[in-house]
Amino acid sequence: MEDFRAHAEDVVEWIATYLEEVGQLPVLAQIEPGDVRASLPLEPPEEGEGFETLLRDFRDLIVPGITHWNHPSFFAYFANTGSGPGILGEMLASALNVNAMVWRSCPAATELEEHTLDWLRQALGLPEGFHGTINDTASSSSLYALAAAREQGLPQARMEGLAGGPSGVIYTSVEAHSSIEKAVITLGFGTHGVHKVEVDELFRLDPGALRSAIESDLATGRKPLAVVATLGTTSSGSVDPVAEIAEVAEAFGLWLHVDAAYGGPAAILPELREHFLGWERADSIVVNPHKWLFTPMDCSILYCRRPEMLRQAFSLIPEYLHTDDGEGATNLMDYGISLGRRFRALKLWFVIRYFGVLGMAERIREHIRLGRLVGGWVEEHTDWELMAPVIFSTPVFRYAPSARSPEEQDELNQNILDRANASGEAFFSSTRLNGRLTLRLSVGNLRTTEDHVRRGWELLTRSAEAASRV
Amino acid sequence: MEDFRAHAEDVVEWIATYLEEVGQLPVLAQIEPGDVRASLPLEPPEEGEGFETLLRDFRDLIVPGITHWNHPSFFAYFANTGSGPGILGEMLASALNVNAMVWRSCPAATELEEHTLDWLRQALGLPEGFHGTINDTASSSSLYALAAAREQGLPQARMEGLAGGPSGVIYTSVEAHSSIEKAVITLGFGTHGVHKVEVDELFRLDPGALRSAIESDLATGRKPLAVVATLGTTSSGSVDPVAEIAEVAEAFGLWLHVDAAYGGPAAILPELREHFLGWERADSIVVNPHKWLFTPMDCSILYCRRPEMLRQAFSLIPEYLHTDDGEGATNLMDYGISLGRRFRALKLWFVIRYFGVLGMAERIREHIRLGRLVGGWVEEHTDWELMAPVIFSTPVFRYAPSARSPEEQDELNQNILDRANASGEAFFSSTRLNGRLTLRLSVGNLRTTEDHVRRGWELLTRSAEAASRV
Repeated sequence: MEDFRAHAEDVVEWIATYLEEVGQLPVLAQIEPGDVRASLPLEPPEEGEGFETLLRDFRDLIVPGITHWNHPSFFAYFANTGSGPGILGEMLASALNVNAMVWRSCPAATELEEHTLDWLRQALGLPEGFHGTINDTASSSSLYALAAAREQGLPQARMEGLAGGPSGVIYTSVEAHSSIEKAVITLGFGTHGVHKVEVDELFRLDPGALRSAIESDLATGRKPLAVVATLGTTSSGSVDPVAEIAEVAEAFGLWLHVDAAYGGPAAILPELREHFLGWERADSIVVNPHKWLFTPMDCSILYCRRPEMLRQAFSLIPEYLHTDDGEGATNLMDYGISLGRRFRALKLWFVIRYFGVLGMAERIREHIRLGRLVGGWVEEHTDWELMAPVIFSTPVFRYAPSARSPEEQDELNQNILDRANASGEAFFSSTRLNGRLTLRLSVGNLRTTEDHVRRGWELLTRSAEAASRV
Repeated sequence: MEDFRAHAEDVVEWIATYLEEVGQLPVLAQIEPGDVRASLPLEPPEEGEGFETLLRDFRDLIVPGITHWNHPSFFAYFANTGSGPGILGEMLASALNVNAMVWRSCPAATELEEHTLDWLRQALGLPEGFHGTINDTASSSSLYALAAAREQGLPQARMEGLAGGPSGVIYTSVEAHSSIEKAVITLGFGTHGVHKVEVDELFRLDPGALRSAIESDLATGRKPLAVVATLGTTSSGSVDPVAEIAEVAEAFGLWLHVDAAYGGPAAILPELREHFLGWERADSIVVNPHKWLFTPMDCSILYCRRPEMLRQAFSLIPEYLHTDDGEGATNLMDYGISLGRRFRALKLWFVIRYFGVLGMAERIREHIRLGRLVGGWVEEHTDWELMAPVIFSTPVFRYAPSARSPEEQDELNQNILDRANASGEAFFSSTRLNGRLTLRLSVGNLRTTEDHVRRGWELLTRSAEAASRV
């Protein structure tokens, strides 16, 4: 154990230094495919090796191949932060190594999960009655939500399967996250089971088009099951009009699932609440603290107003897991697919307590300010085009000098992206909006300051000049 | 950052002391449902709190509610270990907080995952061609495997869904893990989509009964898709005759999935290989290093001989995740549902290198010796009945004094279990075999010695005496 202490101190020292100095490292790993594998022996070691050797190889062989999500100039995908209290929570959770599948297998992990998620529910302004569980990712959370929707609409499916029944349909916008389509495929409805509804000019699901889609499917004998609204889409950060969508879902008796994996934490800010109006009418909501709530991967919350439907979809208690711990004892394995469940609530509990609700709000508010600042710079620049209003912290834009055709502009933007990322100074990702290549600058890291976003923007404009000269 | 250093040192000191002293704590948490929640404020804090307060509350409010999976007398479910190098790997992974969804989002995490799993493949004696990916749990791994089987047998399902097609069937034994049935339900085949095949007197799937089951389903127009064999069932530790099962699966062109979540690591031992004969003919195999390979939760490996079928089932690349990093760049998001993927390979790499293949074998061998030792004690005792041969490390048995009826014996065994667990000295779980309540003693923790299993056995026999007196 003295060995463990000494090695753990070395690890902590590495982590502390890393977190101090990560801003000096290249953001995107500057290596080629296969480089890391080529540096490793082809066969596993027969004899054990000292931990010093492991830590040395970690530093020398692994770290250079890391794309640093902790870097303050990481602007790709959705930027996130594994904050100090979150990391410390994970350290304790990995040491405890418990499995909260049934209450007795770890009562504290079960109860802290329910309690912490109830705290966050309050902070988000959601009413009582939303029961939260933690899953690994939003992909799982949305899959579970849509499985509950299937259970509601096609209750015979759990026993008899889908083969004899009608074709189930899930409605969402063309801008919804790919995880929704993946969930629908997994559940047995196929890609045809996703009816992608048109969006308006601000990339928001059109409730009128939703109503027509449902009616036309009903007319052809299909079985509408659920509607998925998104609060903060991945490509544009757009916010679906969830109150109007709830109206439609309720009119047809469909399950309403809200994908707020990215946008959700912004509901902590009173001044942002208007964008969430109506989400309290959802049957289920996904919010990812590992995205924009300073919690290390993985931590995705599924709030469900009808948790009994999750249990109905998933509960299946074999003899070797049969327990009788009384009414107040929740068995979290009953709410999803994964039987094994890490103690993920601990890190989130630490994060919420360390920052407090006001502290979380303050940091999210600053990220939104920075995102909108970039949006303003884009708008000031005649050669650049802001592709969507910046509601949260992810401005999306493209270089669009009027002298170039749209296709030439696409090439320019790809070139800008590649140049900027290759510099190692910042890391951006791209998407397509209205069919055109679009750059994204996501602010979500606690270390990111106004200076970082300014330098990120300057890197893009410099790259645009260089790309234009080619 | 000095704060982080200081707090991390406090955390490490707590962890080191905990791991030294966990054997003195009660194994099963000695609390009632609701106790932990009752100790916590109903509302989240507005202002942030110091980390000292958090760590104090962790110690005072959370730890007493923990069931200690690290305790050397934890014999419930499948006992496991979050070993030192595994914990240190998790610490580093949580600090890096990367997301290996596409190659460029973390090249080192992607390549180390592929490389480490290839090392383990060699250690397990599996041939080349099995491609490994890490998932959270065996529930996910088996779900993905059966989704690939669905893709093979019903290729139209990905687009059109299951509604118009035949009823798919997955075959497994009545002793298979509940995760198989859950996966089949999730995939849209319903509980009727699981054809549970009878077992022989040693709880092994009967290949003849399997063949008849497939033939009778074919005769009624159902669509056989996959067979699931288990190497180390949960209730009895039985080992299905996988070579004979492979024969049947191949004859009918069915996907063969092998659930070796628990038993798999024993394949590292040359003298145990006979039990694995034929598993190299499987299309997919699940092995859980977080069970019996000293790796903290969560780490479940899906080996797949036809990874293109996983990609075919799951790959779905939206514009915002489109990358072009060349041929050698694997995008691990394409092999399953979860888009977000933690750097789980790091802890496994540390574990394999720290122990070495021989070191892992030695420890697994000792666990098997201890399991069989308990099996021997049970057999020596006229009032106790060993319910199955001890192939791995989990003897299963029941108190069965001949003067009592089977129903009275069931009550006695429940009473024994409750008394033993309430003592806090050890923690056992139960199951049913041949309809009778059966106790399990699973050896899988690195801290467990012969003395611990002896005291565990004595606790059970003492509890049996006490229970008999009532």
